[in-house]
Amino acid sequence: MNAEILAVGTELLLGNILNTNARYLSERLPEAGINVYYQSVCGDNPQRLKETLSLALSRSDMVITTGGLGPTYDDLTKETVAEALGLRLVLHEPSLRLIEQYMASLGREMTPIQRKQAMQPEGATVFRNDWGTAPACAVEARGKVVILLPGPPREMEPLFEHCVLPWLAKFSEGVLLSHTVHIFGVGEAEVEERLSHLLRDSVNPTVAPYAKQGEVQLRVSAKAGTREAAEALIAPAIEAVRAELGDHVYGIDVGSLQAAVVALLRERGLKLATAESCTAGLLSKRITEIPGASEVFECGVTSYANRIKHELLGVSEQTLREFGAVSEPVACQMAEGVRRLAGADIGVGITGLAGPGGGSTEKPVGLVYVALSTAGGTEAKRLMLARVNPDRENIRYLASSNALDMVRRALMKQN
Amino acid sequence: MNAEILAVGTELLLGNILNTNARYLSERLPEAGINVYYQSVCGDNPQRLKETLSLALSRSDMVITTGGLGPTYDDLTKETVAEALGLRLVLHEPSLRLIEQYMASLGREMTPIQRKQAMQPEGATVFRNDWGTAPACAVEARGKVVILLPGPPREMEPLFEHCVLPWLAKFSEGVLLSHTVHIFGVGEAEVEERLSHLLRDSVNPTVAPYAKQGEVQLRVSAKAGTREAAEALIAPAIEAVRAELGDHVYGIDVGSLQAAVVALLRERGLKLATAESCTAGLLSKRITEIPGASEVFECGVTSYANRIKHELLGVSEQTLREFGAVSEPVACQMAEGVRRLAGADIGVGITGLAGPGGGSTEKPVGLVYVALSTAGGTEAKRLMLARVNPDRENIRYLASSNALDMVRRALMKQN
Repeated sequence: MNAEILAVGTELLLGNILNTNARYLSERLPEAGINVYYQSVCGDNPQRLKETLSLALSRSDMVITTGGLGPTYDDLTKETVAEALGLRLVLHEPSLRLIEQYMASLGREMTPIQRKQAMQPEGATVFRNDWGTAPACAVEARGKVVILLPGPPREMEPLFEHCVLPWLAKFSEGVLLSHTVHIFGVGEAEVEERLSHLLRDSVNPTVAPYAKQGEVQLRVSAKAGTREAAEALIAPAIEAVRAELGDHVYGIDVGSLQAAVVALLRERGLKLATAESCTAGLLSKRITEIPGASEVFECGVTSYANRIKHELLGVSEQTLREFGAVSEPVACQMAEGVRRLAGADIGVGITGLAGPGGGSTEKPVGLVYVALSTAGGTEAKRLMLARVNPDRENIRYLASSNALDMVRRALMKQN
Repeated sequence: MNAEILAVGTELLLGNILNTNARYLSERLPEAGINVYYQSVCGDNPQRLKETLSLALSRSDMVITTGGLGPTYDDLTKETVAEALGLRLVLHEPSLRLIEQYMASLGREMTPIQRKQAMQPEGATVFRNDWGTAPACAVEARGKVVILLPGPPREMEPLFEHCVLPWLAKFSEGVLLSHTVHIFGVGEAEVEERLSHLLRDSVNPTVAPYAKQGEVQLRVSAKAGTREAAEALIAPAIEAVRAELGDHVYGIDVGSLQAAVVALLRERGLKLATAESCTAGLLSKRITEIPGASEVFECGVTSYANRIKHELLGVSEQTLREFGAVSEPVACQMAEGVRRLAGADIGVGITGLAGPGGGSTEKPVGLVYVALSTAGGTEAKRLMLARVNPDRENIRYLASSNALDMVRRALMKQN
């Protein structure tokens, strides 16, 4: 079965936003045995949307639209799809009630145009949107399948993961099962080289690498008659990856580095505290993304100014003068200081140059020191993070990822 | 003149890479008075590329391709375009010499397949590629314009900037200019209703709403002979928006709430400090996304545990016992405490329930208190940010946005 992704939205044609939805769907659809042959984008223009949609229906078995499901007058996707397939739009009561609840929770009145969001093509399978107000749906008509998804990625992605992907199973005989191997500390090129045989020869299971920001994920997918049979096909492939990459593998289906770290801290009953300069709260924000983080995280300090590093974390003024704020000894004293301040088991310190300004030849943008302080002592790591992408947010993100990885490896050693 | 962007590359259909070229070109082309009506993507498949190209030529005055100009057998864009326009490919000597020089500089031999990169459609305007080996070119035939650009953004972007944009001037029917009005505190549906006349009747300038997370942006675009004339068309529309939405408008082309806040703090020469519980560093992370934030931000505290709220920020234990951590008095004492601790002009305190657990009937998930402490006193705001099915990250993001908006409004009042 082949599919076309049709993104609807003038903001895409104006270059206001990146079409991350097309990438996400192109990456995930093969898991359901569906190949993407085309991606297209058109604006909120009735005539052009109609033409683009009928073209997509003429050349693809399945069309997946993103965007144009909102309440406003220029959200036309549902109307246009229904018309193209000769279907009426009917009121979907459960969706209407959800939208009413949502508006009530915001203390806002339900406006007439919001009713529009509860209208669905007759006979559609409606997917409840727990991440926003616009319900998604799937329609089968005239030998084609059309799936309508909202535009915002934070709604589209979970809807696809939890509602659409399971629904798609009916188009592929048997069970299609995937596990994700999470890898940190080796680049995509090295992973592909070291696992080349596995990647090249993999048929069932298939093993596909995806480079995430500073990480690599391998999606291992197998098709079989039963879930158990699929698991049995996947297990040896995952073992082969572990055998080759060792402790660079930080988890299977674990979601993120911060999730792995919080889980390890909870197992060990240990508490972590953070002192951040260049990342300025990004590390503590990522740790506390994980529900239940409060059991293992109580305190973080963003010490952006030297004065705060000294007064709050006890970094010596002489060390700051002698080595500068971006230095290994300062990172170490930040880690030790926040560990003391918070009465935690593990203290992390991050100091670096995220740019764009402030770099020099001996201390270029992208230079970051990460330190880890425990009862056993303090260790530090020097990172150069501007090689691939000298972007402020990228440097900050990679710095926080490396800090999480240092904590993870320290906790693993305790086994 | 309207254009279509056709990205060629199977890696896009596999979701391996994001189509940043489509966004870049969509954003830049209006500067030459060219409107993008379609973006399409197809793989390195001769038949589908041929079909997608002829479709693009049938519906657009100009087609801009990215990718498929490399030396390998599956780089087919040039061949396919030449065939579609009935043109031969001829050797372009200057390009050949440049490729020879480039290979020599790498100490490599010129291979036969690299000759292929020097072949160009007859009559094409060839753009010298100083950032890679594949030359770009523009062809005019059969009443259409086709521009061929390489896929790697680090080659495509400078080629467009320095070669294509100047060349496009000859087609310019004037300037298309856009400004973005940033709005916080009213939902998309309400903006839509209050500005319905402006949105529906807008032709030149056009006014289009985009919902961002918890925000609304209005893109006001006008077309005119000169930049000045376009500005003159846009100004009254922006005034009409300001007149209707008042101080919900937080800026024009300002980028983000945190950028607006950092700019205001720098203007006023004031320093901000943050005390975060449920947002746990997200607010300080957002503020420090802005280069130069160090002038106005020195210190943030993530006080996740009550003990830290008390010991570090001086929140009274009795207040914590009496009102609970998620309460207005605790938010106020956090704001006052961090202002004192950091020696800042403005202190912000955030405490709330991000969920998924921990909610109760009188304190449901999504309940957040934000407090602002200045020399003039302390004010607090109670927010209900719960969704139908609460999303932890969304609640945290909206809480930090509301805190930024409170700071912004306080700073505006000082005028």
